[in-house]
Amino acid sequence: MTTRIILAGPRGRMGLEALNLIADTEHFELVAALDRTNKGKYIDEVVPTSSLHAPIYTDIDECLAEVEADVLVDLTTPEIGRVHTKKALEHGVRAVVGTTGFSEADLTELRTLAEDKGIGCIIAPNFAIGAILMMKFSQMAAKYFEDVEIIELHHDQKLDAPSGTGVKTAELISEVRESKKQGHPDEKETIPGARGADYDGIRLHSVRLPGLVAHQEVLFGGFGQSLTIRHDSYNRASFMSGVKVSVDTVMKLDTLVYGLENIIE
Amino acid sequence: MTTRIILAGPRGRMGLEALNLIADTEHFELVAALDRTNKGKYIDEVVPTSSLHAPIYTDIDECLAEVEADVLVDLTTPEIGRVHTKKALEHGVRAVVGTTGFSEADLTELRTLAEDKGIGCIIAPNFAIGAILMMKFSQMAAKYFEDVEIIELHHDQKLDAPSGTGVKTAELISEVRESKKQGHPDEKETIPGARGADYDGIRLHSVRLPGLVAHQEVLFGGFGQSLTIRHDSYNRASFMSGVKVSVDTVMKLDTLVYGLENIIE
Amino acid sequence: MTTRIILAGPRGRMGLEALNLIADTEHFELVAALDRTNKGKYIDEVVPTSSLHAPIYTDIDECLAEVEADVLVDLTTPEIGRVHTKKALEHGVRAVVGTTGFSEADLTELRTLAEDKGIGCIIAPNFAIGAILMMKFSQMAAKYFEDVEIIELHHDQKLDAPSGTGVKTAELISEVRESKKQGHPDEKETIPGARGADYDGIRLHSVRLPGLVAHQEVLFGGFGQSLTIRHDSYNRASFMSGVKVSVDTVMKLDTLVYGLENIIE
Amino acid sequence: MTTRIILAGPRGRMGLEALNLIADTEHFELVAALDRTNKGKYIDEVVPTSSLHAPIYTDIDECLAEVEADVLVDLTTPEIGRVHTKKALEHGVRAVVGTTGFSEADLTELRTLAEDKGIGCIIAPNFAIGAILMMKFSQMAAKYFEDVEIIELHHDQKLDAPSGTGVKTAELISEVRESKKQGHPDEKETIPGARGADYDGIRLHSVRLPGLVAHQEVLFGGFGQSLTIRHDSYNRASFMSGVKVSVDTVMKLDTLVYGLENIIE
Repeated sequence: MTTRIILAGPRGRMGLEALNLIADTEHFELVAALDRTNKGKYIDEVVPTSSLHAPIYTDIDECLAEVEADVLVDLTTPEIGRVHTKKALEHGVRAVVGTTGFSEADLTELRTLAEDKGIGCIIAPNFAIGAILMMKFSQMAAKYFEDVEIIELHHDQKLDAPSGTGVKTAELISEVRESKKQGHPDEKETIPGARGADYDGIRLHSVRLPGLVAHQEVLFGGFGQSLTIRHDSYNRASFMSGVKVSVDTVMKLDTLVYGLENIIE
Repeated sequence: MTTRIILAGPRGRMGLEALNLIADTEHFELVAALDRTNKGKYIDEVVPTSSLHAPIYTDIDECLAEVEADVLVDLTTPEIGRVHTKKALEHGVRAVVGTTGFSEADLTELRTLAEDKGIGCIIAPNFAIGAILMMKFSQMAAKYFEDVEIIELHHDQKLDAPSGTGVKTAELISEVRESKKQGHPDEKETIPGARGADYDGIRLHSVRLPGLVAHQEVLFGGFGQSLTIRHDSYNRASFMSGVKVSVDTVMKLDTLVYGLENIIE
Repeated sequence: MTTRIILAGPRGRMGLEALNLIADTEHFELVAALDRTNKGKYIDEVVPTSSLHAPIYTDIDECLAEVEADVLVDLTTPEIGRVHTKKALEHGVRAVVGTTGFSEADLTELRTLAEDKGIGCIIAPNFAIGAILMMKFSQMAAKYFEDVEIIELHHDQKLDAPSGTGVKTAELISEVRESKKQGHPDEKETIPGARGADYDGIRLHSVRLPGLVAHQEVLFGGFGQSLTIRHDSYNRASFMSGVKVSVDTVMKLDTLVYGLENIIE
Repeated sequence: MTTRIILAGPRGRMGLEALNLIADTEHFELVAALDRTNKGKYIDEVVPTSSLHAPIYTDIDECLAEVEADVLVDLTTPEIGRVHTKKALEHGVRAVVGTTGFSEADLTELRTLAEDKGIGCIIAPNFAIGAILMMKFSQMAAKYFEDVEIIELHHDQKLDAPSGTGVKTAELISEVRESKKQGHPDEKETIPGARGADYDGIRLHSVRLPGLVAHQEVLFGGFGQSLTIRHDSYNRASFMSGVKVSVDTVMKLDTLVYGLENIIE
């Protein structure tokens, strides 16, 4: 069954990827786009690389009134996204929203609205489904392997070490295992830093090299074995896996879910 | 709290590893061993590499009557293991049994017994917890990434290709995804076999090299990213992770569980 | 010391990458470009993403007469490239040429010319220096490890399996080791293709997954160990490493070298 | 053609592996062993796991007088090894010696002796041919990729970080590239140690996990690509690759070579 989609923010970097996703997915159909400008034009006029022929609206009320849609995919800003999401839900259209900017109050209001209407809504700060699975599996594995180290590898233009995903992974592992000083009790660094950063006993190592994109490996060791979970992100399209999963999942939900990790079974 | 263990089969290859495990785990205590011979001797006499000083019995009734124990760890044969397990459960002693040889009828009988007594029993054909996690995570990931290939790597004395674990992983993935022919519809092999073995559209590749032990990598690919789950088994001790987890888990169960994959949360 | 470069073919896919390379390399300077059109304009006019302000010529004689240059980097076609290279060498300008299209006679003529002038010339069918090092190291390692398997991994739009680089690697290994049937003499495939493609006893495995780009792993196994050489190509820029190395090397040569593998020490 | 070997030190840990190597290599033949004791006995008596039936000598003069041999493989101590090697060379028997304990004067004396006799002699502090190739290739690659990081992974009973091989690899790379501060000039560690140990700008990361053995990965990054060289050592047998190569190579030499890296072409 085809899912009819309204895309808000079609000309941003994420929006352009979303156009590709919709074009490449057989059961997705773009029925309209919401843009700040270009009213009355069509997507394939405004984005020449796209073959999708859907009308552009600049006003969500008008769009919802004229177009039959199942899901709003919103890749705009938190301010605009909040208004869009609210109006979509009120109109009985489900929503998939990529943002970190909603307050607790926003989420509560939208959850109530979704439940009143009995329809789904997914708010996701991160759509990289592979990275989310890596974190989820790492947390699960930590119950059975208490020794773990994280290696994250990025291009050499990255400023911070360790990466946000690296620290987030360590946090999630830390929630399920007791604090542990790993390694030999008497180990010593003959060159400082060799054993990496220490987060509650978990060691994190940050590799920075030109050419790399965004990669992370979580290594667990135990009796005569190791278990490794690795995610490689090669380009921006990696976020689209999560958008696809979200659109498919939101059709089956009757409430609001915050964070893709909470839709993984 | 210390878990008091009776070990059946202490001189087999798995049994010797189990002695190491018990010696190395602070909250485990060996209170007795069941052997076919060596009645009245002590483990450290019979297995000089072990420092564990526990009496050896050749009769389980006598052993259960004289020794206070929490768990029987049975690493013998299916025939002996079935008798041991039944008697242990009847006596209120939980059981962790490594075997593939129990029939459905055996399992039903033992399950009833465990539930009557309100105590746990774990029967596991495979104690390699890392391999089991790899399979479990692969099955979970397959819901979000429909394209997957399996590379399994073993020493060059292995006869069969693909490996049992490789095929088992493909089966588990197959249960949760629709059949799919992967790769380009028009792809062609210029040398036959390049694209590997085909199991319901999933490709399996078997590497055989001297020096290797037992390794497997499950690769998922999607929009601009890949997710890899890898297990390396370096030696026989790798099975002991699962025995340890089982002993800890069986203390909290009040029924029988078959297969370690069913105790993973 | 700055190397003054004339770039032929600045608007092709490789040419655009070469503009980036020149802009990013402190000791490189673009002194002119050779294009089929745009005579008298400047690169930053014609390629707005570039900050390089160098004049465009459509005639190489005029260009060589007016501009002081050290190296011609030619990324055009074999036909045009041959003329360009010959005229550059005659003029005392070294040349780095990316092409597979030169005949033996062409190469002999250009070699004689280079040696007469006592200047360097590098003709390279493949500028991916990382891939070339992988092949070179694999050939070297094969002298010490007679068992080897190749895993090449590409996006699922690739038609042929194994890849050209995979087969080329097997060929190079084959040159230095005696034919050998690897694996157990009695090994058997329970699913056909599991053991991969057979090239003179070397097994090749082709993985095809969406999201991947171009990757290859060469695995050697021997007594209790393995040695792995892996190349990951993430995007087209990967070819620029070889162009950079070639420009630096051609300045020190006084003859023609065909193939980057022959400049690696 | 069969190579006739005298093995000195057959009962040490390395010696036992060497017995396996000789038994498993078709063109190797054990013609005698040199031991501190067991005079007049045979190897298969003294080492029941071996099937090799060769006489044991305790005196090298007697051994060399009575036995026709091509190569002495000496796995004893530096003191005994020096005497053995000298006598073997004087007798026209080539020598392969595993030791770090010879002085410059010892090496000069032995080199003169080998050259006078026109026969080969190999003295090797490290027989792990895979590790030596990894270091050699890393040094070669560093000429083409100036950015490199080293990840070494060992079992958690290792005391020092980074490992000796890790530091040695960084030293070798340092010899061929100019000093370079890698990573972003403004990068910062939000948890200290994340960026690893710094050796002349090269970053080293030490992972310590139970279950692991001895592994190292050298990662080079450049324009849109990475090149990885990895060595995995799974057990002590890994040293035997180098002994085998050395015995084969020493037959073709007419001088002394110190260090396996110097026999690799």
